[in-house]
Amino acid sequence: MNFVSGGVCAAKGFKAAGVHCGIRKNKTKKDLALIVSEKKAAAACVYTRNLVKGAPIAVTKAHVADGTAQAMICNSGIANTCASDGIETANGMCQLAAKALNIPAEDIVVASTGVIGPSLPLEPIESHMGELVANLSAEGSGDAATAIMTTDTVKKEVAVSFEINGVECKIGGIAKGSGMIHPNMATMLVFVTTDCNIAPETLQKALSADVVDSFNMISVDGDTSTNDMVTVLANGMAGNTQITEEGPAFTAFCEALAAVTRTLCRMLAADGEGATKLLDCTVSGASDVATAKTAAKSVICSSLVKTAMFGADANWGRVLCALGYAGVDLDVEKINVSFKSAAGEIPVCRNGAGIPFDEDTAKKILLENDIQILIDLQSGDASAQAWGCDLTYDYVKINGDYRT
Amino acid sequence: MNFVSGGVCAAKGFKAAGVHCGIRKNKTKKDLALIVSEKKAAAACVYTRNLVKGAPIAVTKAHVADGTAQAMICNSGIANTCASDGIETANGMCQLAAKALNIPAEDIVVASTGVIGPSLPLEPIESHMGELVANLSAEGSGDAATAIMTTDTVKKEVAVSFEINGVECKIGGIAKGSGMIHPNMATMLVFVTTDCNIAPETLQKALSADVVDSFNMISVDGDTSTNDMVTVLANGMAGNTQITEEGPAFTAFCEALAAVTRTLCRMLAADGEGATKLLDCTVSGASDVATAKTAAKSVICSSLVKTAMFGADANWGRVLCALGYAGVDLDVEKINVSFKSAAGEIPVCRNGAGIPFDEDTAKKILLENDIQILIDLQSGDASAQAWGCDLTYDYVKINGDYRT
Repeated sequence: MNFVSGGVCAAKGFKAAGVHCGIRKNKTKKDLALIVSEKKAAAACVYTRNLVKGAPIAVTKAHVADGTAQAMICNSGIANTCASDGIETANGMCQLAAKALNIPAEDIVVASTGVIGPSLPLEPIESHMGELVANLSAEGSGDAATAIMTTDTVKKEVAVSFEINGVECKIGGIAKGSGMIHPNMATMLVFVTTDCNIAPETLQKALSADVVDSFNMISVDGDTSTNDMVTVLANGMAGNTQITEEGPAFTAFCEALAAVTRTLCRMLAADGEGATKLLDCTVSGASDVATAKTAAKSVICSSLVKTAMFGADANWGRVLCALGYAGVDLDVEKINVSFKSAAGEIPVCRNGAGIPFDEDTAKKILLENDIQILIDLQSGDASAQAWGCDLTYDYVKINGDYRT
Repeated sequence: MNFVSGGVCAAKGFKAAGVHCGIRKNKTKKDLALIVSEKKAAAACVYTRNLVKGAPIAVTKAHVADGTAQAMICNSGIANTCASDGIETANGMCQLAAKALNIPAEDIVVASTGVIGPSLPLEPIESHMGELVANLSAEGSGDAATAIMTTDTVKKEVAVSFEINGVECKIGGIAKGSGMIHPNMATMLVFVTTDCNIAPETLQKALSADVVDSFNMISVDGDTSTNDMVTVLANGMAGNTQITEEGPAFTAFCEALAAVTRTLCRMLAADGEGATKLLDCTVSGASDVATAKTAAKSVICSSLVKTAMFGADANWGRVLCALGYAGVDLDVEKINVSFKSAAGEIPVCRNGAGIPFDEDTAKKILLENDIQILIDLQSGDASAQAWGCDLTYDYVKINGDYRT
């Protein structure tokens, strides 16, 4: 497996585009993205578990109920959530794209991200649909990745090539998400494309299994969004024998999918609203995976751990505290903690109690921007990894006046 | 029932003191508090549910196992948690106080608050015990309330007088807590004293019932502390017939206790680390109390709601979002939301969808420092109230370099 360029257009038969249509006032910010497969593709989705759901979620669910889709359209600026005309608008977006692409509206995945509440106007989308379709290209992944950004500071795209029985396949994705990130069985907006030939139900199985260890293990601020969605389109154009069941080919596909989703996870957490650091917490030595996952997430969600990391303060007591209230059964007197980064590793807690350490060395390690918090529960063989970010002045700034 | 002065010394037979002993480097900050009853008192406690517990918790549990105590000692600066000599130190604090007061060490409630990890030195406590005891007075509540503060910006004390069968009783309390506040069945440090005559098990029943609706409904930052504890001493010196069972006298006592604890709750939330506003969320129209409680807590815990309130931004979509991921069953299309303060009330969401409102009026309401978020689920008769605060630059500042 190799990382390759091209993002969501790396796989054969996919084109993408992103334009500014005017939903956002800032004319330099693209706000409408389109990703299209040359052929109808197997489609799999996972969705937010927030009871308040964006209208596009309902429309997309209906459209991929048959396990297929051919295009994905997404706007940023307004989430099309809690607006009385939401369903109508989400359907309208699909119809406009369908007409321009000459495919059925039922083959379109629709998504929106932005402010909850206001109605999403269709007019800017309608008036720019021609430009959007005209811009579709195999080099369009970056534009699409840019158009779906809200408070994100960098676009997020990745792709890998891999082999299925000697046939080269590619899989790539783009993602957006910076705040309101605390996925629960589905997450922010992630669009993945592959030319691998895989049956819809097998694709769904792969995706549903993947998000449990990838997007569901990120948190920026503990807020689960109303519009989270991960979609994969697989158009089969790589030409491999269709994957229809578990086995070596399915495993190879899942590994490639995981490489894409893990990379996007790290990108999402590192670009958390206001973040200056990626926090990567690994809990090992747990009695079971559920314990390890819950413990790791509790640590990366703690406001006190997050602010300590912002301050490059090796305040390991807050890590212990977050483990203690995680709601899992653990033996406090067996917990080991160390901090690690490119600048080195420093153990700070052994068997639940502090150990002497050099504060200057700890500070140097924590001043890096990619911090690992390593926790060993010394109680078993299970482990889990979770990703988060520090809590900074800029998080408050960004969210104190998001609508203005 | 009337609010009275005197705090933890309002009730007959209680004296208190607070001094600087040197656990904290800042010589102007008191760091050691003592509260003593003239007579041995009925004692009730509730404790943090964090699995990582401060050593004082274990020692206090043992000392109040017989339902009685006579004094409470508490230091700030170091939490005496996760230190290898913790139990020894907590016992040492009790022995020093016991010797100076000439009472058994087993009649002393001990508590500590501050940084987790370092050993708490006994020497400063030993060398200042004489001064502490010499300062005990019926006017000492304020000094004790000051000595238990950590990042708190104001001392917190309250007292009320009430009648039991024509006998005047008093109950008062002091509290500390500003960050790491997200109680779970017990909370920060709260010391309550009363001269009401009430049996230990009846007192415990009253306290355990009270915290469910008081301290367990506050959150500052979602972090449940390792040292949280609420203690009540009831010395019976008011002279009422002992309360030993439910009935009018028990109800009167519970109402007085609630007046004290609710007031302390509002004080604690309003003084949340970095907070500029108290958030008071009431969820009504719920199908049951558990739903109302969970929903109210989800709203006041949301980082996005908290930052919006800091920015005086009527971003009600974030309130809906927080309700949606609260994990309770609710009908989104029935949710009404309005914001209220001394400047007025403004409905912003009706039946799950936005309604037109004047942004200037909303801004004026949200610029106040005591904000009510009123939510009607229109699905039943149950309601609940939760208290929190906004999330500000200063929260990040305070916690980015707490140890330095």
